[in-house]
Amino acid sequence: MPGKINIDAYSLLETVRKQRPVVHHLTNWVTIYDCANVVKVLGASPVMAHAKEEAAEMASIASALVLNIGTLTDDLIEAMKIAAKSANKKGIPVVLDACGCGATQLRNKKTFELLDETRIDIIKGNASEIAKVAGENVRTKGVDATKVEKDLIQIAKELAAKRKATVVITGAEDIVSDGKKLYIVKNGHEMMSHIVGTGCMAASVIGTFAAVEKDLALAAASGLVCFEVASECAVKGSVGPGTFKEKLFDYLYHLDKKTIDSMQRVEG
Amino acid sequence: MPGKINIDAYSLLETVRKQRPVVHHLTNWVTIYDCANVVKVLGASPVMAHAKEEAAEMASIASALVLNIGTLTDDLIEAMKIAAKSANKKGIPVVLDACGCGATQLRNKKTFELLDETRIDIIKGNASEIAKVAGENVRTKGVDATKVEKDLIQIAKELAAKRKATVVITGAEDIVSDGKKLYIVKNGHEMMSHIVGTGCMAASVIGTFAAVEKDLALAAASGLVCFEVASECAVKGSVGPGTFKEKLFDYLYHLDKKTIDSMQRVEG
Amino acid sequence: MPGKINIDAYSLLETVRKQRPVVHHLTNWVTIYDCANVVKVLGASPVMAHAKEEAAEMASIASALVLNIGTLTDDLIEAMKIAAKSANKKGIPVVLDACGCGATQLRNKKTFELLDETRIDIIKGNASEIAKVAGENVRTKGVDATKVEKDLIQIAKELAAKRKATVVITGAEDIVSDGKKLYIVKNGHEMMSHIVGTGCMAASVIGTFAAVEKDLALAAASGLVCFEVASECAVKGSVGPGTFKEKLFDYLYHLDKKTIDSMQRVEG
Repeated sequence: MPGKINIDAYSLLETVRKQRPVVHHLTNWVTIYDCANVVKVLGASPVMAHAKEEAAEMASIASALVLNIGTLTDDLIEAMKIAAKSANKKGIPVVLDACGCGATQLRNKKTFELLDETRIDIIKGNASEIAKVAGENVRTKGVDATKVEKDLIQIAKELAAKRKATVVITGAEDIVSDGKKLYIVKNGHEMMSHIVGTGCMAASVIGTFAAVEKDLALAAASGLVCFEVASECAVKGSVGPGTFKEKLFDYLYHLDKKTIDSMQRVEG
Repeated sequence: MPGKINIDAYSLLETVRKQRPVVHHLTNWVTIYDCANVVKVLGASPVMAHAKEEAAEMASIASALVLNIGTLTDDLIEAMKIAAKSANKKGIPVVLDACGCGATQLRNKKTFELLDETRIDIIKGNASEIAKVAGENVRTKGVDATKVEKDLIQIAKELAAKRKATVVITGAEDIVSDGKKLYIVKNGHEMMSHIVGTGCMAASVIGTFAAVEKDLALAAASGLVCFEVASECAVKGSVGPGTFKEKLFDYLYHLDKKTIDSMQRVEG
Repeated sequence: MPGKINIDAYSLLETVRKQRPVVHHLTNWVTIYDCANVVKVLGASPVMAHAKEEAAEMASIASALVLNIGTLTDDLIEAMKIAAKSANKKGIPVVLDACGCGATQLRNKKTFELLDETRIDIIKGNASEIAKVAGENVRTKGVDATKVEKDLIQIAKELAAKRKATVVITGAEDIVSDGKKLYIVKNGHEMMSHIVGTGCMAASVIGTFAAVEKDLALAAASGLVCFEVASECAVKGSVGPGTFKEKLFDYLYHLDKKTIDSMQRVEG
């Protein structure tokens, strides 16, 4: 049974700030700004480029690649495959945010194509999205999470082993597993579910941390700790979802070791 | 002549918060985040999906569909038609924001194609956009409203009757008519015209309320009252258009019966 | 050697607020909202329209055209060419933000196609982007600026002469040259580099000022002064990049002659 542990999330954040890795995205048109901006306020360098003709070259100068199928089209998925193959060849981590997987046949089909045709290093989604990727019988209602019956830790572990990837299930408690190691990140605040974009931003944060740390489960857990500690601070300093979001960027930018260490709630 | 009336806008907002309807959008790339976020802070569940291959399926799991031609292309309009036909079949309301109609031949042509080939339940635009849809001789300069000579209430009523739809003309005073009933919503603040996106968000709010109320004129008027009362509150609590917008989301999220009832200014 | 000068940036801002010019954009999907909104808070009227079928017509009703290749595709570049040719025919200024030029072969190729096939009146980028456009040997890492060895003023002047255009190199000190006149704008704050979008917004501001002033170097310098004076004010009134950005819109909206005149730091 998992117990309380401490991870040194700050040291990875410090590395991000020093190395300023380029994090390449092919993402959705809804939260594309927030995905770029969250990478920027962490101290890294976002680049969003989805043309098939440059996706491979851009991935080759990046340190991580983030894919998000939120507003997928056939063309965009083709560009994602090209970018992912280039990232695989260079050996940089590829994050897939299975945004809305389970909602339509197209999303299911394209998610599995990405997983089967390229190497995805980190598979990220909410409970119903990951359950769908894992082959469970769920029907997602749009892009918000719906209830999943089976134990989520079990789903994460099995999917990680099956896909030889790190799996991240976001929610009130985030589950991170690479099939062996397990982290449960208990930080965060329900206000995060009242604005659009926190899920997508979480994937970008994970990609940014994965750009500087080979232990991808540790990278993902550390990124989530930083993102969610900042969210907790932002909730305290705001009156509603609008001001919360702006303060989230403020707190992420100013995040320090003392705050992270004192506020982190991780089990593993 | 219309006189002051009271509508129970709060009870519809409460229903939105309880039912959390999925509101499907095919919209423009400028304000897509704001459209999604306004639906979210109202307590509903936005989904933005424009691939032709999934537009019908996504519409079939939604409770309302919002179309906005702000950055239209041929492909996007084709997907809108597919989504609208699916929505028509399911019997959920379809809102069309005729954004920029009158500015170019393409916008005019595609607006009429959508109106002729699918059933649009709520036609929404500013004065010059709706005048164009109604067949008046206007030339829109970009996407901002230009002066229209003819009486707007008359235009709304006639267009509603002709298209068997609810018509919403936004402006300093919003006009809502289904051909029989008439609401004039006098809430709002001119600061709303100093940022990009309030018009698009208004359509998303209307779609969200239409998702839970079959009387579409009442739904549209109630949504506008809530949106514009929150705007008035946000103006008071801010110093300019940047902070106004964030506070708008704050106030919409916290909107309560007392505030709505005491601040609403509706005629009908 | 350039010395301190005063330019009447406020009088151009006043003209923008009076004339409310339509500024047409074909830009990237990351910062498209911010580009539109910055034009709006300046008092002008943004329009974003990228369909090939309407790009020419929309440009023909605008007073300036802003092109930004941040998330270019072949299709989007084709629409940019159509819009630029229409703008050239009408005689309105065309601004090109060479966003990410130097990062990939596609960006290089398409930037030169735009420059060779249409008349670009203002070429804008950061140091590495403009160096690439000028034929220097640089490799941009993503979209953030990298070090350029050669003297930037020299690069700006030579490129301006070669392309018969006004050249703007943004950075801690912005360089504006039309080949004859030179402005160095020393306003701004490094916080601007910690959020996504300030570079893109700068191009939109320049386009807005160019819409009302035929001396394009003066227009560009004046726009940059206003944008960066507001940024300095916004930094003082905020605690981090999130609140900074919202305050930036507030201060731009409220910008007055006294603030601009007392804070401007321009050499030429």
